[in-house]
Amino acid sequence: MTTPLQTENQFVLIYMFRLRSFIDSARNISTMAQCKLLTADNVKSFVNSFDNVLADCDGVLWNGMEAIPGSPETINQFIKMGKKVFFLTNNSTKTREEFLSKCHKLGFEATVDNIYSTAFAAASYLKNRGFNKKVFVVGSKGITQELDKVGIKHFGEGPDILPDDIVSYVKRGVTLDPEVGAVIVGFDDHFSYIKMLKAASYLLKPEVLFIGTNTDERFPSSEQSIVIPGTGCIVEAVRLAADRDPIVLGKPSPYIFDVMAKEYNLDPSRTIMIGDRMNTDILLGKNCNLQATLLVLTGVTYQSDVERLVTSPTKDDVIPDYYLPALGDLLPLL
Amino acid sequence: MTTPLQTENQFVLIYMFRLRSFIDSARNISTMAQCKLLTADNVKSFVNSFDNVLADCDGVLWNGMEAIPGSPETINQFIKMGKKVFFLTNNSTKTREEFLSKCHKLGFEATVDNIYSTAFAAASYLKNRGFNKKVFVVGSKGITQELDKVGIKHFGEGPDILPDDIVSYVKRGVTLDPEVGAVIVGFDDHFSYIKMLKAASYLLKPEVLFIGTNTDERFPSSEQSIVIPGTGCIVEAVRLAADRDPIVLGKPSPYIFDVMAKEYNLDPSRTIMIGDRMNTDILLGKNCNLQATLLVLTGVTYQSDVERLVTSPTKDDVIPDYYLPALGDLLPLL
Repeated sequence: MTTPLQTENQFVLIYMFRLRSFIDSARNISTMAQCKLLTADNVKSFVNSFDNVLADCDGVLWNGMEAIPGSPETINQFIKMGKKVFFLTNNSTKTREEFLSKCHKLGFEATVDNIYSTAFAAASYLKNRGFNKKVFVVGSKGITQELDKVGIKHFGEGPDILPDDIVSYVKRGVTLDPEVGAVIVGFDDHFSYIKMLKAASYLLKPEVLFIGTNTDERFPSSEQSIVIPGTGCIVEAVRLAADRDPIVLGKPSPYIFDVMAKEYNLDPSRTIMIGDRMNTDILLGKNCNLQATLLVLTGVTYQSDVERLVTSPTKDDVIPDYYLPALGDLLPLL
Repeated sequence: MTTPLQTENQFVLIYMFRLRSFIDSARNISTMAQCKLLTADNVKSFVNSFDNVLADCDGVLWNGMEAIPGSPETINQFIKMGKKVFFLTNNSTKTREEFLSKCHKLGFEATVDNIYSTAFAAASYLKNRGFNKKVFVVGSKGITQELDKVGIKHFGEGPDILPDDIVSYVKRGVTLDPEVGAVIVGFDDHFSYIKMLKAASYLLKPEVLFIGTNTDERFPSSEQSIVIPGTGCIVEAVRLAADRDPIVLGKPSPYIFDVMAKEYNLDPSRTIMIGDRMNTDILLGKNCNLQATLLVLTGVTYQSDVERLVTSPTKDDVIPDYYLPALGDLLPLL
């Protein structure tokens, strides 16, 4: 026999349990309903839903120096259809002009104004703030040339090697340039312990800006037996040494899209993002409330990842709205 | 007017609220009650509470090549009082014998068996597993000499510099040694992008062991204007590139204490840890259920940190039982 009091307590607890279950299942439904394969059935409403395309480059348009088959034709078809196409890359190793030249060489119709790279973003970020000090660069010529174009002084690019050992190095005295007002960390294939020491030391001053171009952990690579570490590994090492968080300009940070949206009056609800990486490209789409995200499987994400997303998504997953094995698969559907 | 049903619902909710408040306040009390200054009033019960002392080295016993005043006399007094003293360092740059020689030079009575460093720990970890393959070492001679002592083959120590750029490097073909069965990452002042690439590539094989000596982010340094990045920055960069977590042997991992406790039959409830770093030394004490932890302020932690711990601890704080400005302050109290 139950007393009214027991019944009421049970009611409260059961109600709370049901509310919780309802919230959990609603969350599941909202994630499960996504990551649809683009097919002849749904492509028309998809294509009509946007005017602007943000296309990631490595792993979507090309891998290394090879265009991914079908990608140039699909991008060019978008342009023919009157869509505005922007090339949006976290890669900080090239200037806008170098990317343009690569686009043309691989068959993509592009103009320099449609190319947004993180090296360009880093330079324009400082320029827009009226920055007039020096930059210590952990990065490559892509960054230093973009800085040159806006007249910002810099140093640090290229090899910086410890001639002996850290004890002798510190004993000789480390000279830091008092004119440094920012540290930019991008991809640097000459990254070294000494560069990390210098970057972290400059960042001891709270007024020195700390800019990370992006946080991608690995480059997509056709060579399956080696890992090509990405900028994210370098940014993270400096972040830990400096005990400070960087301003990250690349995807998934909305910074670059905000700049583009202002310049071209882009409506996020008429803009899509196409990418190969969940935690940068697809997350950018979510962070900027874009109309839709399209994942392609020609870069760092595989069919098995999509299967896991569809069958057992977790609350931490970033789920694309659509996916395709390759961007070129869209062409016959257009 | 309230109905019995409303009253009962309110009762349940109020009870749950009170239970939550009680848990929160109990948690606060347990953290607030710690971090006491050692004084003449509480030193006797403290000293009688332990037989074994684990002493961190950098920032507690010495800074660089200078003993911290009073530290040698205090350690030697512990030994005179019949306490067993162990020198427990996350520093992976020296062999046990080199640490012993440093101890003697700076006035600490020590024997080689009482010295536990992470270079020694890494070599003994592999030896105890019957490891018979090669080790790729991101680290210094401390590690390679300890490996030599137990007859384990290795390579990777010393400078490894990119002669040109990563694209050319990958194009030439990266040769990985198929005999590698472990990657050890310790402190490496010649850490470079290429070392990170190789380490992460070896770690693509799940059967290759991934050992990190420790995760300290910075070295304590008397030079306030520069940061000397610690092993933690290097381990983290490789961890991100490899997309795998390492086995960490140094503090706060209980690994070294477990080895010592077995060898010397140490009772954790009669053992204390003395250190300068909250997230390694003091956390080790908590992780191993040691009798007490004593924080000293001659390394990376300052009086202002202690004041914050006492006045506004957060749930993530690791709180030492006692603190002293310097280990030597204990000497007149003994």
